[in-house]
Formats: sequence, structure tokens, C-alpha cells
Amino acid sequence: MATNHAVAYKGPGQVEVIETEYPTFELKDGPGVNPANVGRKVNHGAILRTVATNICGSDQHMVRGRTTAPSDLVLGHEITGEVVEVGPDVEFIKVGDLVSVPFNIACGRCRNCKERKTGICLNVNPDRPGSAYGYVDMGGWVGGQAEYVLVPYADWNLLKFPDRDQALEKILDLAMLSDIFPTGFHGAVTAGVEVGSTVYVAGAGPVGLAAATGALLLGASVVIVGDMNADRLAQARTFGCETVDLTKGDPADQIDQILGEPLVDCGIDAVGFEAKGHGAGSDHEAPATVLNSLMDITAAGGALGIPGLYVTGDPGGIDEAAQKGALSLSLGTGWAKSLSFTTGQCPVMKYNRQLMMAILHDRTSIAKNVNAKAIGLEDAPRGYAEFDQGAATKYVLNPNGLIPAA
Amino acid sequence: MATNHAVAYKGPGQVEVIETEYPTFELKDGPGVNPANVGRKVNHGAILRTVATNICGSDQHMVRGRTTAPSDLVLGHEITGEVVEVGPDVEFIKVGDLVSVPFNIACGRCRNCKERKTGICLNVNPDRPGSAYGYVDMGGWVGGQAEYVLVPYADWNLLKFPDRDQALEKILDLAMLSDIFPTGFHGAVTAGVEVGSTVYVAGAGPVGLAAATGALLLGASVVIVGDMNADRLAQARTFGCETVDLTKGDPADQIDQILGEPLVDCGIDAVGFEAKGHGAGSDHEAPATVLNSLMDITAAGGALGIPGLYVTGDPGGIDEAAQKGALSLSLGTGWAKSLSFTTGQCPVMKYNRQLMMAILHDRTSIAKNVNAKAIGLEDAPRGYAEFDQGAATKYVLNPNGLIPAA
Amino acid sequence: MATNHAVAYKGPGQVEVIETEYPTFELKDGPGVNPANVGRKVNHGAILRTVATNICGSDQHMVRGRTTAPSDLVLGHEITGEVVEVGPDVEFIKVGDLVSVPFNIACGRCRNCKERKTGICLNVNPDRPGSAYGYVDMGGWVGGQAEYVLVPYADWNLLKFPDRDQALEKILDLAMLSDIFPTGFHGAVTAGVEVGSTVYVAGAGPVGLAAATGALLLGASVVIVGDMNADRLAQARTFGCETVDLTKGDPADQIDQILGEPLVDCGIDAVGFEAKGHGAGSDHEAPATVLNSLMDITAAGGALGIPGLYVTGDPGGIDEAAQKGALSLSLGTGWAKSLSFTTGQCPVMKYNRQLMMAILHDRTSIAKNVNAKAIGLEDAPRGYAEFDQGAATKYVLNPNGLIPAA
Amino acid sequence: MATNHAVAYKGPGQVEVIETEYPTFELKDGPGVNPANVGRKVNHGAILRTVATNICGSDQHMVRGRTTAPSDLVLGHEITGEVVEVGPDVEFIKVGDLVSVPFNIACGRCRNCKERKTGICLNVNPDRPGSAYGYVDMGGWVGGQAEYVLVPYADWNLLKFPDRDQALEKILDLAMLSDIFPTGFHGAVTAGVEVGSTVYVAGAGPVGLAAATGALLLGASVVIVGDMNADRLAQARTFGCETVDLTKGDPADQIDQILGEPLVDCGIDAVGFEAKGHGAGSDHEAPATVLNSLMDITAAGGALGIPGLYVTGDPGGIDEAAQKGALSLSLGTGWAKSLSFTTGQCPVMKYNRQLMMAILHDRTSIAKNVNAKAIGLEDAPRGYAEFDQGAATKYVLNPNGLIPAA
Repeated sequence: MATNHAVAYKGPGQVEVIETEYPTFELKDGPGVNPANVGRKVNHGAILRTVATNICGSDQHMVRGRTTAPSDLVLGHEITGEVVEVGPDVEFIKVGDLVSVPFNIACGRCRNCKERKTGICLNVNPDRPGSAYGYVDMGGWVGGQAEYVLVPYADWNLLKFPDRDQALEKILDLAMLSDIFPTGFHGAVTAGVEVGSTVYVAGAGPVGLAAATGALLLGASVVIVGDMNADRLAQARTFGCETVDLTKGDPADQIDQILGEPLVDCGIDAVGFEAKGHGAGSDHEAPATVLNSLMDITAAGGALGIPGLYVTGDPGGIDEAAQKGALSLSLGTGWAKSLSFTTGQCPVMKYNRQLMMAILHDRTSIAKNVNAKAIGLEDAPRGYAEFDQGAATKYVLNPNGLIPAA
Repeated sequence: MATNHAVAYKGPGQVEVIETEYPTFELKDGPGVNPANVGRKVNHGAILRTVATNICGSDQHMVRGRTTAPSDLVLGHEITGEVVEVGPDVEFIKVGDLVSVPFNIACGRCRNCKERKTGICLNVNPDRPGSAYGYVDMGGWVGGQAEYVLVPYADWNLLKFPDRDQALEKILDLAMLSDIFPTGFHGAVTAGVEVGSTVYVAGAGPVGLAAATGALLLGASVVIVGDMNADRLAQARTFGCETVDLTKGDPADQIDQILGEPLVDCGIDAVGFEAKGHGAGSDHEAPATVLNSLMDITAAGGALGIPGLYVTGDPGGIDEAAQKGALSLSLGTGWAKSLSFTTGQCPVMKYNRQLMMAILHDRTSIAKNVNAKAIGLEDAPRGYAEFDQGAATKYVLNPNGLIPAA
Repeated sequence: MATNHAVAYKGPGQVEVIETEYPTFELKDGPGVNPANVGRKVNHGAILRTVATNICGSDQHMVRGRTTAPSDLVLGHEITGEVVEVGPDVEFIKVGDLVSVPFNIACGRCRNCKERKTGICLNVNPDRPGSAYGYVDMGGWVGGQAEYVLVPYADWNLLKFPDRDQALEKILDLAMLSDIFPTGFHGAVTAGVEVGSTVYVAGAGPVGLAAATGALLLGASVVIVGDMNADRLAQARTFGCETVDLTKGDPADQIDQILGEPLVDCGIDAVGFEAKGHGAGSDHEAPATVLNSLMDITAAGGALGIPGLYVTGDPGGIDEAAQKGALSLSLGTGWAKSLSFTTGQCPVMKYNRQLMMAILHDRTSIAKNVNAKAIGLEDAPRGYAEFDQGAATKYVLNPNGLIPAA
Repeated sequence: MATNHAVAYKGPGQVEVIETEYPTFELKDGPGVNPANVGRKVNHGAILRTVATNICGSDQHMVRGRTTAPSDLVLGHEITGEVVEVGPDVEFIKVGDLVSVPFNIACGRCRNCKERKTGICLNVNPDRPGSAYGYVDMGGWVGGQAEYVLVPYADWNLLKFPDRDQALEKILDLAMLSDIFPTGFHGAVTAGVEVGSTVYVAGAGPVGLAAATGALLLGASVVIVGDMNADRLAQARTFGCETVDLTKGDPADQIDQILGEPLVDCGIDAVGFEAKGHGAGSDHEAPATVLNSLMDITAAGGALGIPGLYVTGDPGGIDEAAQKGALSLSLGTGWAKSLSFTTGQCPVMKYNRQLMMAILHDRTSIAKNVNAKAIGLEDAPRGYAEFDQGAATKYVLNPNGLIPAA
């Protein structure tokens, strides 16, 4: 069998390209594989030659050493690839298909999958509902920042691009379908964005910019993005967003200047628990800041979409409450305004087909909006480092040199 | 009291500008006023100086002499104006406000209004649910193709533009909020248009073009407009629509060439009962053509939005069935595909605020898309005639010279 | 291989119990099998020992000789059974499981299945979206009025009952989950029934009674069932429905007497194209009667759920229009009221789990409400005949004697 | 002018029946009236002779002295009455009508009212969206635990009972339409309760019992109610609920015994910020307990309906965090399960008509379920006291002796 090169977590602050096994139709033991999943037959799977595989903000959480991720865990849950082999039970996906892989692994057979809730599939992670590739405590499915990767339940999970050449032309856009574009879009949808809405997106990282893109695609009249990183705010302005510079304080005043009132219809949390306080010099973590701020600035009757990750425990949290995942929330503020809140992983499959259509027919420019940039697999360590330092760039690994030069 | 000039129906094929009464806070007897509405007190009303008042395709139905509309009926249900007087019960609308008037008159107090179904208000038309200004058999509320017009239940019905100067700059766009933009948008919404959808709009008149605009605003990936009028199709292409020339036959083949399959996700009927057959030389009326065609080309699981008007009786219909409003529908075709169908007047108030926001923040160019053109009140007869002959123009009357020159 | 006994269509008016093949994990050639499906591998399938398999009104359409169903077609799409064998690709369903089989066959891998539209699955019927067991022109999957039956895509299609003993106690209720209970419930849901609604159900056959049951479960305040069959109306009254005797004329007057107005919020068509006219002596077919009547009596703003079957062609129709499936509909009546219409096969999987929960926890008595009655497989011809004559009974075949005596 | 007797807050732990002014069509100055509302004309209002006016759990919050409610504030926001006078702008409500008054006061003219969000009306409370009768900091509209009360915007706010005699027969049930029945129902709706759902209701006070009633009406398969008050749990069991005794510890284990798993589909918080810890001897306040517990026991993909009140500040809270309304929430638990949360006042008008229909047609027995008991106005102090001590009773004041003896 051919070899396989992959990006692995080695220890706090450290990722490396390692040589690892070429996948087979079985989930073998390895770093981070759930014991109950070891030896699982994957005749329903497909093996992909990776075309594009992106570095995600949630990978950074592991790389920063704030989880129990074991050394040599192969990273990567944002995968686009070409099918090179299919298991004996695969009926509709064919060798040669170019496909997008939803980051959430789903069986297509449980109650939740039948209800389109593929982010909390009951059959893929022995510990709890929901799973993902290359992620600690998510079942142990091997990550896709690699030359080759195994995708289980291929007929269910894979989204086939209708035309190979057309797809390769827009591959940087389509590569965003595996996670951040649907995730940001889900944030917008669950925040209640519709035609004419005013929207505030907390966080101008790739998910925040994807949420802003999604909000615009849904017809929002004004999309305001807040962050403390000037480069990322500049990136947001390139596609028609207004911006709020959080180093200057809370967003309410700046929103008031933009809209004539310190309130938006819809709030999106694209930050999560690693939030920092607002204002000059605020680089201490303040995990409840974003949600409390969103309750402040979202108008009565509005909704909050919360794609940003919140965890049940965070050993590296700033205090005891943070370490056990307890947030100090001013829920009364939200209650008085009749706000609603939607949390959790985006069920990618609910949105990826429609967003693919929007990309293929030139209705959106997600790659440009998030400043997607292809780099070689060997450059992954640099990509991780630059992204961690706040580069206004979405890094897309190109392990097989299949992404055409721009 | 000041005088008032207005466009009135005089007889088949004939409209004229007449001198009529300046409105007061009472619905007085007059041409077409429902006897049960005569003398109705309108202390909750506002009197508007008309800024823009559009000629609508549904007016043509009366003007062509196919209804029982009486002579001297003042026409016009697409009204935008400035409040010059308010009744004693009006609390929030103020003199000087620039406002859009939903064409459907609603009380804001009945079960249907409380459920946002303002197109079928129970309290304004003694004959049946639903009413409109200047329309035969709709209660007798006086039309707004006039210098001044009375709007009942002003606090409920009127949509105030937030800033007068900004509004006047975009007044041709905002003038479309009284009817065709919400109506077309409602067609798109009820056809199930969402981000990524493929859409076919039957009819490239103003409502069809508004539906296409609405579909794009909702994120449709491809919008295809079909008509037999080359100018109107050219107009559709100016804002990114694909087009189907129905003089060349049924739309399925042409859709196939555009999409690679003869099917769309969503179908919108912007034609109604005065439809004509497809193909060369097909200028005979064929009232069921559009719906049967839409059932053909809408994919299984899709939906049909039907803003196009269907009537209960049409004395001028081509045969006995048409005269009593019976359509010969191949419902089995739709049933086999699990299609759904939504009919009826658009409840304008459900959408006008959000579409106003989209206009004010430059997310859509409805006036340009429908080729809106302001003309003087005295030019109304010419406007009616040109529109009837198929001009690719939406005529906006400017009775008080308040529309700024472009 | 064991033998298998099954109910087959033999010719107009004639069904017989025949000896046929025991199923294997392949769709073999046979009466009515679509050529493109012959030889299809079904490694994802399960073989069931049938516990209960019901005679359905839509079977009657074939048996009356009004379709192109071939002789020896094995009938039956309402199947409940025990898994006796699973194909090599089946992962979650186990031998011994007691399961309900949705009548619509679905792959669980196509766009429509992913969107919960399992009634129009794209991968099981080579001719068009949607399929069913034992039905003409639906792909050729062998019917389940038999001792044993093959169910494809078992992990996706089958609903497992949580506890075998509990399930056997309520087996006549659970047997309704394969078709009529979800189908009637879908009719109620798509008619917009919610807590407090007033509802009219056209047709007191099993689907009509199931729709009435579903409406009550959804919290309807008043459910009125109309039919010309006195026994079936009496059956409707046993569980709290009001009734309308259509031999006495149109339903409007009788509804007026019940509700104080001749209007309901929600209309359900549980009859379909084989409708007959209303009034004394009206036993001629009048295919558009039900829909036109429902448009009359449904209040403005209401909705029509249309689980009753409409076909694209009916060679036995009463006139040329009926033969090609064209209905003469007064759509203007519906349009003036802003009605909406939902047609098509019920996607059973969308509802069967929740209805199972309602049955298992004694919230509904569907078997009693439709007067379900178990008879032997050999009694199927009698069951078909009595049902065709209008018996107020839902016949449940008991091919393996597994249904406990009541 | 006639006199008026009313229940007033006098100081912590103290309510009294006082003599106060008979209402006029103006909001005069008085205890708790917002200065900006003083002198407001209410020509759109109606004066009611109170038929039934209930003591609510949220009144207790004021009576316990934990708010800034001023002495002599007239209490009461759960009002049912007979119209004795209407203002000059009232058009549809007539003297003699028997009506239910939604506790949330709404104008029927603002954006939120038009969107059915009457709990956050923009025009009735000068301080913030949303208002209520007889409640501190809610605008100052005079309470309805009185012989007579003024209701503004009568045509919009009032729900007329169709028949006076029928209404008086069911008056104790209909009296629940002003608040707790819609409020509980809203909790169930926003918790995602549908046919077949399993539901946990935290709190067996009147709102909890109303939520349980609502869940059953929506078709829930199992409704479990948790509390520490044995009498209230016994009350819940009278209408088919399962119960969890929280003096025995967290609910998960007891739910597991009932359902076979420690999880429900839907969670309802009918307690709010005055929650106490679970387990024996837990009578200290623990404001985040209910929400944290609900996140634990609600299954992945579920929803939480939160009708229980949370406040922005609570001077009497147990610690500094509680005093400023900050809750320590394990949001990560909810996030990992993709839960959603809906907070806020119930918009009563969205539900009261349909619940009235359910009552009038005997589909529910809300008065019996919450153990409603009519007492004289003069017995209000006793009612407040007994209710505060945990009586399993909903006290309904009968100020004019119009409630028929049971």
C-alpha cells in the first residue's frame, strides 16, 4: 500500500508532517481512536485523494495544548477530495468523483440523521452524539490534513460536485463547504437573518467572515463585524461589511454610529469560549464577554446564532469557573428582550448543497471573502503559526498539488 | 376643500383624468363603493399627498372591460405619499411622514390581521375577506392614482420611511413597496426559494421581474424568466436573469439547455388567468397553461408560488369553463411530484419593512429591474395604453411633481 | 429455500393467494418489475417475516382493473414484520427486531432523502421519483401481503419498535404506522391543523379516519368527517368526530349547523380522483368534486392537505378530461381566499417515530378508530371484496399467525 | 364616578384591598405610573367589569419585597371581564362583550406587534419594550385585581368569547387565557413539543402545570413534572403527568426510571431565577440550577422553553452575582448537544384564540389541571399567603361575584 503524509499534533504549539498509514476500510487503532471504534469495518466508506484541506480555528484549540489530544493525532476536518477507492457497500459515489466532506461524520441511519441533525449523529462516536475527523474525543476518525483520508458512510456523507473542471476552477471556494461556509451560514440562519436584517457578527476570523458572507447571501441589509484585529476587520470591509473595532470598547456605541441605534436584529457569536474582553489592553480571556455583549446589542425579539465553540471543561481556563465551563451570563438581559439562542455544531449537510449552488453560479465569493490561500502540506506548521498570530488568511493545504494556481 | 385630480375608468379601453373630491375622514358614496361601507367613519385614517402611484397589471383587467367596474371608478392601489392630515384616532403616524401604503387595506384588529394575513382582512370589505384601493368589488375604497388619497387605519397600514431625504432619493424603488415588490417576493417565498435554488418565473411583466428580483435577493442560484415579449425578456437579462422565449415553445427544453435538466426547484406564476398558450402564433387565451407548465417543469418536492391572479368568474373568458373560472388542471402531475401551491394576494405588510431595508441599504435595485419610469398624472392614459401593448416599463404616476428627476 | 405465500392481483376484480418465491437479497425479474431494476443487488436489505400487512384503498385502484398492473403482481405496501435475515451491508438493524416498514421505499442517500422527502426518493424507481412495494409502475419492488418480504436499505427504512412484547400488545395500532396513520397525519399537518383548529375531512375511509385521528392528536377543537357511507360515518362518531352525510347534499350547510358558520380552518382530501358527486343518487364519478368543495368550505387563509391520490392518467375515467387526469378546478375560489394546497405521497419516515411514541404511550387509539380487524392471509380475497363494498373496516392480514387474538 | 376596590401592594409580605378610582380613558398619575405615561389619552381603551382576575406567581415576586414596587401599587395582570364602556376610537369591541385580556399590553401598531411579538410592544412602556398591568417598572398601567379596569387598544388586545352563556359556564378555564395557559403553552411550543415528544417540566406551580397541559394538548407522549412540593406533584398526576420528586435529588435518575433513559426531547423551565437547589434540605436559592439541570437531561438536538422569569437585577439575591442577575451556566453542556433556548414573556395573543377554541370544545381542562379556585376580592390577602406557602391551587379573584358557583 502507498504511504500517506499527514499533519499531526506533536505537543503544545507543535504540529509536524508525519508519514502515516494509507487508509483502508477499517478504523484501526491509533492516536486518539476511541477503543470502542477500533476495528470498526467501513465497507460503506470511500478513500479520497485530498484536493484541499483547511486549517480551522478549532484545530488551534488542540494545538495550543488546551485539550487532552494525544501526540501524533492526525489533524484536519475540512476536507475536499477526489474519490480513489470505494468500499463494497458504496452504491452511488464513484471513483473519480470530486467531493466535499462535511466535517461532522454521520451515519445516515439514526434518528438524528433522519431529522437532518447530522452534527449529533448517534452512531459514530461511542462517547456522545456527534463526531468529526481528526479531533480529540470525537470518536477517533483519522484527520484529513493528509494526502489520503477515509470517509465513512460515503453515499450519505459526500457531496459530489456536478462537473469536475468547473469544480477545480472554483476549488478554493468549494473547499469552504466542508466547514466554515456552512458553519457561518448556520450562524446567520439561526440568528434569524433574513432579507433586510441588520446583523452583528462577533469575530472576524474565518468563521466570522463566513457568517458575514452568509448573512449577505441571505439578504441582510447591513452586516457589521467586530474584532480587535485590524487586518481581519480590513478583510471584512473588502466585501461590504461595516466594522467595529473592539480595541476601542464595547460595540454598542459604534453600532449606534453606523445604524442610528445601538441595536441589531440578529447577533452571531463566531468567537466562542476563548473570547477576550473588549477595550484597549484587553487581552485577558473573558469567556462570557461575547454572549453578554450580544444580549446587550441584539434588539428585543431577536436571536443569537452561536457557532462559536463552548466547552464543558477547559483545564487551561483563566479561573475555576472557566475550567469547568461555567459562564457568568446576564440571562435576564436576554429574557427581558425575549431573545432566543441556538448553539452547537453546524449540521453541514443541511446547507452544503445549496451553498455549492451559490458558488457554482457566482452568487458569492467565499474564498475571496475569507482570503483563502493555498499552501503546501509541508507548509502546514507555518500556516498554523501565522493563523494563530492572527493572520487575516484562511489556510488551505494542497497535499497533492491539485489546486490550480490562481 | 381643495379639489383633487384622479385617474378614472370611463369604459372599456378608456381611462381619463377627472376632477374629484378631496378626501375626508369618511367613506362617502361614489362609483363602486359598497353600500355597506357608505358613510363609514375613518377617524383612524390619514390623508396623503400622493408622491408616487403606479399603474398595475391588475388595473388593466378592469380597463380592458372584463369586469363590472363602473364608470368613474378612481383607479390606483400602488400608493406612496406624504401625510398631510391625520384623523383624531391616529397616534403614531404624523403629518409630514413619507409613507408606503400596502395595496391591501387591513384593519389591524381582526383575527386575520393579528395572524399577519392582511390580504384577507375581515373588516374592510363587507362582501368577503380582503380589500384594495380603487378596485372593483373590493369594498369601494377610493383609488390612489390621484393627488390626494385617504388611507384608513393609518397607524396599522402605513410604513414610514425613516428619513425623508434619503427616501426621496430612492423614491422610485420605494414606490414598488406598495405592491409589486412584496407581491413578487411573496411569490418567491411561497415557491420555496432559498439560497441556491433554481427558479422559473412565468411572466416578465413587472410582477414577474419583481419576483425574479426577490428570488435573487433570497439567494437563488439561477433565475429563469419566461415570456413571449422580447423587450420584457431583454429587461430581465439586464439584472442577471436567464430567459426563455415562449414563442419558441414550451419552457422545458430551454430550461434544459440552461440548467442541464428540464427542471427547477421553484416555480412562480406571475401571469394568472389571462395566460396565453405557448409557441408561435399562440395568442389565444389558455387560462390553465401557466399552471400546467409549471407543474411540468418544477422538480419533485418543489413548490409553486402563485401571485398571478385567478378569478371566480370571467365573463370575457374564451369558453364556458373560463367564464365561470374553471381551469383544466393536470393535478395528477403535481401530485406525483408532491408539489405544493400557494395562492392569493400578497400580505404586503409581512414583507414591506424588510424590503425597504434592502432598498435603503442598496441591496437591490427594484426600480431599475422593472424599468420604472415616472410620468405625469395627465399622462396616465398613455401609460395605460403603452403598458397594455407590452411596454417593458413600470409606469409611476407623479401627481404632485414630487418625484425628483432622475 | 422456503416457499412464500402472497396475495396477487390476477385480473379485474380478482385477487388470489399464490405461492411465490422466498425473497433473496436481489430484485429478480417478475410481474411488474421495472427492467432497469432487474438484478439489482440488495445487500443493504432485510428479509422480514410479516407480522401484519394491511389492505389499502390504493390497492383497490389496481384490483378494480383501472391500471396497467400485470397479472400475478404481488400486492401490499403496508408492512410490519420481524427481521429474519439481514444483508451483509446492514449494520444497525438486527435479526429479531420487530419493525414497521414505511410504504415509500427510499434509499437514504439522495438529495430528497437527505431533505426528509422520502416519498420522492430519486434512486429506487428508474422511471420517476418515488416508489412503493407491490404497486404498478413504482419500480417493481415485490409486495408485502405475503409471509416474507424483502425491504431494501433496511438501516434507513425500518423503524424498530423498542420492546417486542409491548409492540405485540399494540400490534394492530402499530401496523397503521406503515401508511395510513402517517398519511392521514400528513394530511392534517399540511392542512395546517394545530391546537384549536376546526377541520373538515372529506372521506371516512381508513385514510380519512386516520386523518381525523391525526387532527385530534394535533389538538383540533372540532373534526368533521364527510362521506356518503353511513357505516363509516358511524365509525367516525365513535371517537369524537362530528359527521356530514353527503347523500344529503353539499357539506356547507351541515358544517354551518355544527359550527355556526359554513367554514373550517383546515380541509383534508382523503378521497382523491375517484370522488363521486354529492347529494342523493350521486354515484357517478366527479373527480374534481372534493377539491372544489374543499375550496368552498375552507376559510380564507386556510390550507388543504391532499393525501387523496390524483393520477396523471386514468383510462377508466368517466370522460376524456378524466382519462388524461385533467380536473376542472375553480381555482379562483381558492385564490380569492389565499388558500394553499399540499399534494403527494406522505413521507412516512417524517412522522412514524413520533406516532409510534403516541401509540406506545396510549395517546391515541388508531386501530380502534379505523376499526382494524385481523384476518388470515387466505381471507384476503374476502377482505378486498368487503372493503370495496364499503365496509367500515381496515383489514389487516396476519400471514404468519403472529397477531395475538384481541 | 363609581368607586373601585382593588388589591394593592402595601409593603413586603403585605397586600390589602383598597378603595381606588374608577378608571377613565386616561392614564392618570399614581403609584408606579411611568412619568412619561402620565396623562396618556386612552380613547382606544375599554373599561371592564372584572369577572375573574387571578393571582400569579410573578406577583409574588413584588409582594415578597424583592422589587422596587411602590406602596399602593394595584396588582393584577390576569384579567377576564365584561366590557362596560368603550372609548370613542373603539370600533369592534362592544359594551356587553365578555373578553379575555392578554397580560402583555400591546399597541397593535408597532413593528413588533405587526410581527406578532406582542410581549415586546414598542409603544406602551416608555422604558423598554414590553408591558403588563399592575407590575413594577412596566409602564404603570393599573392592575386588574379590582372591580373595574381600563384596557388600552381594546380592539387589538381583547379576545371576545363568542357566546356569553357558554363562556360563563367555563369561566374558570377561560380565565387562564390571560396568562398562564398561553405562557405554559408557549413554553411547550418553544421547547419543540410535538406529537410524540417526551417532555420534562421544571416546576409544578400553575405555569408548570399549564405547560404540562399545553404539552399534552400538543400530543406529547410523556410529560414529566419535577418539583419539591408533594401537593403540587400530586396535582400533576391528576391529569396524566409523571412526576419527579426533587427532594430526592437531581431529576436524571428518576427520568431514567420512567423513560428507560435519563433524557427527554424537550425541557421547560417554569421556575425562573428564584430556583432552589435539588435534594433533601435544599431550600437555598440557586438561580442557575434549573437551566443547568435542563441542559443535562435534554437530549442532543432538543430545545429549552424558558417561560420562567429571569431578571436583570435582584437586590435580594443570595450573592453578588445573583444580585446583578448573572447566572453561572454550563453552556458547554448545551453547546455539545446543539440545544436551543427561547426566553421571554409569552406573546399571549399568538395563542389565546386557539386555546380558547380548545377550551370551548372540551379538548382540555386547564382549570381542573391547575386546581383553579374562585375566592372573593376580599380574600385576596389570604390567597396570596396560601399561594406563597405552596398551595397547589390557582387563586381566581371574583370581584363582582360573576363567577357562577361550581
